[in-house]
Amino acid sequence: MKNHTIDALNWRYATKVYDPAKKLSTDQENLILESLRLSASSFGLQPWKFIVVRDVAKREELKKAAWNQNQVTDASLFVVLATPKNIDATLVSTFIDSVAEIQSVDRTKLAGYEGMINGSITAKGEAGAREWAARQAYIAMGTALLAAAENAIDATPMEGFDPAQFDAILGLGTIGFESRAALAFGFRSDTDTHAHDAKVRFSKEKVFLEI
Amino acid sequence: MKNHTIDALNWRYATKVYDPAKKLSTDQENLILESLRLSASSFGLQPWKFIVVRDVAKREELKKAAWNQNQVTDASLFVVLATPKNIDATLVSTFIDSVAEIQSVDRTKLAGYEGMINGSITAKGEAGAREWAARQAYIAMGTALLAAAENAIDATPMEGFDPAQFDAILGLGTIGFESRAALAFGFRSDTDTHAHDAKVRFSKEKVFLEI
Repeated sequence: MKNHTIDALNWRYATKVYDPAKKLSTDQENLILESLRLSASSFGLQPWKFIVVRDVAKREELKKAAWNQNQVTDASLFVVLATPKNIDATLVSTFIDSVAEIQSVDRTKLAGYEGMINGSITAKGEAGAREWAARQAYIAMGTALLAAAENAIDATPMEGFDPAQFDAILGLGTIGFESRAALAFGFRSDTDTHAHDAKVRFSKEKVFLEI
Repeated sequence: MKNHTIDALNWRYATKVYDPAKKLSTDQENLILESLRLSASSFGLQPWKFIVVRDVAKREELKKAAWNQNQVTDASLFVVLATPKNIDATLVSTFIDSVAEIQSVDRTKLAGYEGMINGSITAKGEAGAREWAARQAYIAMGTALLAAAENAIDATPMEGFDPAQFDAILGLGTIGFESRAALAFGFRSDTDTHAHDAKVRFSKEKVFLEI
């Protein structure tokens, strides 16, 4: 089967070394950011904020809180995926406001839908809802990783950092958010030998269960 | 900016009504399943199993455990994303075996890498590691949703079901897995008016924080 999506998934890898001289064009950067913004989420609630870190000094600080991984400073674009600490009725209300506005629906007609979402979130409990928000951010991660690969942009999904330090450096605590993961985007360096590693994936027999 | 990935993300929506007469071709089905199998995960560990439910009677049972949502039975392809209950050294060892085999590396040379992964997982604690596995499954979800849209296949990400019932119906407990989310794939019915809803996404100003 010849398919551009599969080709892209085989082409991509968690880039270890970026060429710091190669920058994303404005179009390429907008494409990545739009893929995050348009990503799916449960109820379409979008319980997230994407922190685009352009400040060089901040990137240096983040790098120290991320085991000195070079991608933090050498990638062209560095985005931290953050989620709200409080997944509550205010967040849902903001979303319902957007639905009413964008779909030109009378706000009062959405009360049932709003109540259903609030009920679902309450049922998860505070810690459960917070973790649920983190999972949603990972949908955005998967989306952006494929979006990048489809457009020949290299990327690195990153969990290896101290979230508390990231939050402090980016001032996320003061806006009620917490960092969950990060994504670096740019172009691989010729020196990144990992680009040539065979991709390790379990066989179909191991990973699929047909019922 | 005109871009096929952005077009695909704008085209897709959480399909509510499938045309049960329209089936994915073998190539389309393989494409979806390959996108799940090739998806990124932390360390490349792939802490997941994808349950492809073909049995019609099982689909009917799952539907009852999913608020009777028609997508469970009407979609051409229905996949449950499951993760292991125990994220332990055995799982890591299986992965390292794969690395050694696929990359033709002496297994003993990977001991340091294996220890690093085990250390990272142990640091998360048992509950933390289990939740971390769930997040990884959501990367696969985001990947498959975009892969489907890029190839004009409709999809529905689904969380609205009773995981314990799903586990029982699919016999996941006996193999040490638990259901986390589900994905339906197929083709939208002409009667699905939601296909025409304007997509609700927060504005760039709301969703991005530039630092």
